[in-house]
Amino acid sequence: MAIMDQYVAILDALRFNKMYKNDFFLTWEKTQDEIEAVFTVAEALKALRVNNISTRIFDSGLGISLFRDNSTRTRFSFSSACNLLGLEVQDLDEGKSQIAHGETVRETANMISFMADVIGIRDDMYIGKGNKYMHDVVNAVDQGFKDGVLEQRPTLVNLQCDIDHPTQVMADTLHLINEFGGIENLRGKKVAMTWAYSPSYGKPLSVPQGVIGLMTRFGMDVTLAYPEGYDIFDDVKQVAAKNAAESGGSFQVVNSMQEAFKDADIVYPKSWAPFAAMQERTELYGKGDTAGIKELEKRLLAQNATHKDWTCSEELMKTTRDGKALYLHCLPADITGISCKEGEVDASVFERYRDPLYKQASWKPYIIAAMIFLSKCRHPQEVLMKLEENGRERIMTGGCAL
Amino acid sequence: MAIMDQYVAILDALRFNKMYKNDFFLTWEKTQDEIEAVFTVAEALKALRVNNISTRIFDSGLGISLFRDNSTRTRFSFSSACNLLGLEVQDLDEGKSQIAHGETVRETANMISFMADVIGIRDDMYIGKGNKYMHDVVNAVDQGFKDGVLEQRPTLVNLQCDIDHPTQVMADTLHLINEFGGIENLRGKKVAMTWAYSPSYGKPLSVPQGVIGLMTRFGMDVTLAYPEGYDIFDDVKQVAAKNAAESGGSFQVVNSMQEAFKDADIVYPKSWAPFAAMQERTELYGKGDTAGIKELEKRLLAQNATHKDWTCSEELMKTTRDGKALYLHCLPADITGISCKEGEVDASVFERYRDPLYKQASWKPYIIAAMIFLSKCRHPQEVLMKLEENGRERIMTGGCAL
Amino acid sequence: MAIMDQYVAILDALRFNKMYKNDFFLTWEKTQDEIEAVFTVAEALKALRVNNISTRIFDSGLGISLFRDNSTRTRFSFSSACNLLGLEVQDLDEGKSQIAHGETVRETANMISFMADVIGIRDDMYIGKGNKYMHDVVNAVDQGFKDGVLEQRPTLVNLQCDIDHPTQVMADTLHLINEFGGIENLRGKKVAMTWAYSPSYGKPLSVPQGVIGLMTRFGMDVTLAYPEGYDIFDDVKQVAAKNAAESGGSFQVVNSMQEAFKDADIVYPKSWAPFAAMQERTELYGKGDTAGIKELEKRLLAQNATHKDWTCSEELMKTTRDGKALYLHCLPADITGISCKEGEVDASVFERYRDPLYKQASWKPYIIAAMIFLSKCRHPQEVLMKLEENGRERIMTGGCAL
Repeated sequence: MAIMDQYVAILDALRFNKMYKNDFFLTWEKTQDEIEAVFTVAEALKALRVNNISTRIFDSGLGISLFRDNSTRTRFSFSSACNLLGLEVQDLDEGKSQIAHGETVRETANMISFMADVIGIRDDMYIGKGNKYMHDVVNAVDQGFKDGVLEQRPTLVNLQCDIDHPTQVMADTLHLINEFGGIENLRGKKVAMTWAYSPSYGKPLSVPQGVIGLMTRFGMDVTLAYPEGYDIFDDVKQVAAKNAAESGGSFQVVNSMQEAFKDADIVYPKSWAPFAAMQERTELYGKGDTAGIKELEKRLLAQNATHKDWTCSEELMKTTRDGKALYLHCLPADITGISCKEGEVDASVFERYRDPLYKQASWKPYIIAAMIFLSKCRHPQEVLMKLEENGRERIMTGGCAL
Repeated sequence: MAIMDQYVAILDALRFNKMYKNDFFLTWEKTQDEIEAVFTVAEALKALRVNNISTRIFDSGLGISLFRDNSTRTRFSFSSACNLLGLEVQDLDEGKSQIAHGETVRETANMISFMADVIGIRDDMYIGKGNKYMHDVVNAVDQGFKDGVLEQRPTLVNLQCDIDHPTQVMADTLHLINEFGGIENLRGKKVAMTWAYSPSYGKPLSVPQGVIGLMTRFGMDVTLAYPEGYDIFDDVKQVAAKNAAESGGSFQVVNSMQEAFKDADIVYPKSWAPFAAMQERTELYGKGDTAGIKELEKRLLAQNATHKDWTCSEELMKTTRDGKALYLHCLPADITGISCKEGEVDASVFERYRDPLYKQASWKPYIIAAMIFLSKCRHPQEVLMKLEENGRERIMTGGCAL
Repeated sequence: MAIMDQYVAILDALRFNKMYKNDFFLTWEKTQDEIEAVFTVAEALKALRVNNISTRIFDSGLGISLFRDNSTRTRFSFSSACNLLGLEVQDLDEGKSQIAHGETVRETANMISFMADVIGIRDDMYIGKGNKYMHDVVNAVDQGFKDGVLEQRPTLVNLQCDIDHPTQVMADTLHLINEFGGIENLRGKKVAMTWAYSPSYGKPLSVPQGVIGLMTRFGMDVTLAYPEGYDIFDDVKQVAAKNAAESGGSFQVVNSMQEAFKDADIVYPKSWAPFAAMQERTELYGKGDTAGIKELEKRLLAQNATHKDWTCSEELMKTTRDGKALYLHCLPADITGISCKEGEVDASVFERYRDPLYKQASWKPYIIAAMIFLSKCRHPQEVLMKLEENGRERIMTGGCAL
């Protein structure tokens, strides 16, 4: 029996043909079948790679990356995904470019896309801007493709915006599927997505928003917890509530970390900045008000400091299901006594979950690759079977014949 | 009939064997046949790509890029061209290197070339330096190859020097060939290469020089227009005059934008700095005279400001052939009311030509790839036919069999 | 007879199976057979490339580079080696990453390694730190691989640490093997590894240490010479003494450049900083003592200046074997009258040895590639034969059939 058979069988039962030649902005813009198709292709690509079978579907082609914020994990995940499929990464480093000359998004988008198959963008710091910028880029290349400027229409992969962090939370969820032994086993599980104290300020909202926007779709009981004043984007809370209602799960917001952790199967304690503060910050940056930004930072740090008790302690972990909730984090975490004096999580808790955390992160390249794959392959099942049939070695080890 | 047949037929009628293992510095150092071979191979590579046929002639190899000036378009064009042929780009970022230690060009050139098939250089800011530097690099690797230091002799592609911008103006011309329906249809067309006002100063001379150096070769009537004092490199004007005489076209220099635009079929309004000022600037930089540079900048900006009427306005466009001259620009343009208060072109004119402008730019990767191809392939026609015959898919879409 | 036959025959007589899935930290941690296997594979890969036969053993995969010091040569050598084998380089630029957030080496190492086959690190400035850091990275990915976080265990290649510079000195030695016509011809040759004056300070110790640690293994007579006070790491001197005893060569330390050069077959005059000063510097950097660092720099420069007579002059070269010792340098050299007023070597000496110096450097990509190859291929001989048998062209030139 071929390795790909089980994945092809799952895909055959799903409808996802609209993903072909399409983009990935927000998870809740995708159907349940489409989300499951991404998980399935991610697992299929991993299975091929583990069996030393090349998954290069591109003989040449470029993946353009545009990071408007520092990044290690996502940058390497995107590079890995591109490489896995045969694309070379070309970084659009705005510092080295002429974009400052006053060129429009439409122009830049076309100029970098003549041979681009994928564009991955991270733009998460400014409320109302990041996701919009991605749409501006997509509209530009869409127009360029229709007008005959571009020979192919590059696919956008949202590598984190102000609203969602789809590659992260899809990887998080695929990790849960693997830990709990199947997507159907997520039903009824309690997830605590909670704010946690960190001595830094202004962390993006995309992870908590992404988590409640996605994890409410599998019949799980999702609790979002934060101190008063640390609200997130209201629209996403409404998405979560709707998802929960449809999936047979639940969604609630509380102002107590204790309440969220009580009997939780999964905990995701992580710092973020209040939505209102992020909006204010966006305006201050827009005005170039350096003094105002400094003042806001000071205020946010002071506000954070009043909630140092919001930390994932051993005591709190004991209150979770059998004291053994699965601890999640998008990394890097602020670990008490390690990376900071007081932070999001006790060092002993973090240490105990190090392996699962790294496995959680390890899905991201496959999730990104699956998004690209589903956008580029007209017949994904056929391509998966063909890759296995071709059986081209990823590394030629000389190991078979001797 | 095979896709490559028409291109092979054209190439069979041309003599370009000296391009094999050779470099591309200036268009006027190449014969008419060689120029046409580049156009033909560029079109052939595009035809293969459009048909999802891989054009990788390199299974491995490096393309080294060295940008001594910021760049988006040319950087991505070079990356795209390399990727199209199977080369990986390695950027020589002088900031991250040890070159400051006082190492010679000869040494650096050899040290980066052990596995380099191509070196692309942009060095356009200093009069008498950029093209010379490229020759220094080529002489160094030539010597290295002859002495057995290098196993292959990397090809140089001039990505813009102080004299010419061959990849740009070849792309511009291939765009014209496509817009006017064939190289033979360029004969008798009037081209206005004119200076235009911009609030920035010190823009390179390589585009106007490159345009008059190349477009005079196809029987076109080329007019170069600039305000008094904005002269370009005299040697290139002589090249243009000679070319025009030989091709049956004409070349004239005027000091009136109106005169240049009158009945023009093609207009290329673009800012540049006076040759004498660029020479002065080169000397000031050589001496590290910061005060002198600031003073020169101020003077140039003031001089520019006296010529704000040199702009590609709707009124001026009306005076061109049927009011419909093809507007060209190497991008990014200084657009009045968009990227600056007053600039090179009216926003409405620019907007109307956006698609053609992007198509103009889209030829650059193919031009660069064609230059590399002709330098690396002993029998280009045979390689083109073999690529088609092999028919390796660029993207494996699974689309064929279902 | 196949090209690979002679290399396969040599490899068949060597034992190097422990290199499979292993790393390369220090040359003296490898057996004589393992060192010779690296030389042999390097030559074999070169022979394939020279014959236009692709040596891509990876269809996809990443080589991660981490340079904690500026570099041109080693950066390009690593890129070239990766490209030669089919790996794409992804640079871990710590400036663009989030590592500053206080993340552990273990975490970073895993996060960048999900699809990494190789990690190349240069970390040479801090005594007691560089090699240790490499081991920390390897321990982290080893753990990650065992725990199922990583699907493959990336191989570490030491691109220069505080103790050794194995890719450099292996390339240097392979150059000697080629110049003297075989590894057996190194026996009895006199090598002068000597300190030389340079107007810069704080140059790493890894080259002199690497040279005496490796070249003492081939029956050569190795003399290390430096002015009093310019001692190197004592442990490595002991390694050298032990090696010399075992190989039938000799190792001595002298405080006279004259004595070292006398009748030498090979001279390697190069500046370095005293080990004690490097230790002091490491501590000052650890404490962030900027004033102390400045003071130390001043002191070191003054100390250097008292030894301007330690230079590789024409006079000194005349005292070597027949006045024709082979001059080695890792480059860039401080050349008197060229890159500095007074430096490590006379301009005329350097000029005379330019070609051999470049050939010396040209081996580094092959050495790195051989290290990777031996770590990744279970049966290197079989893979070499298969590559030749496959005979995939590195460049498709169309040259064969016509």
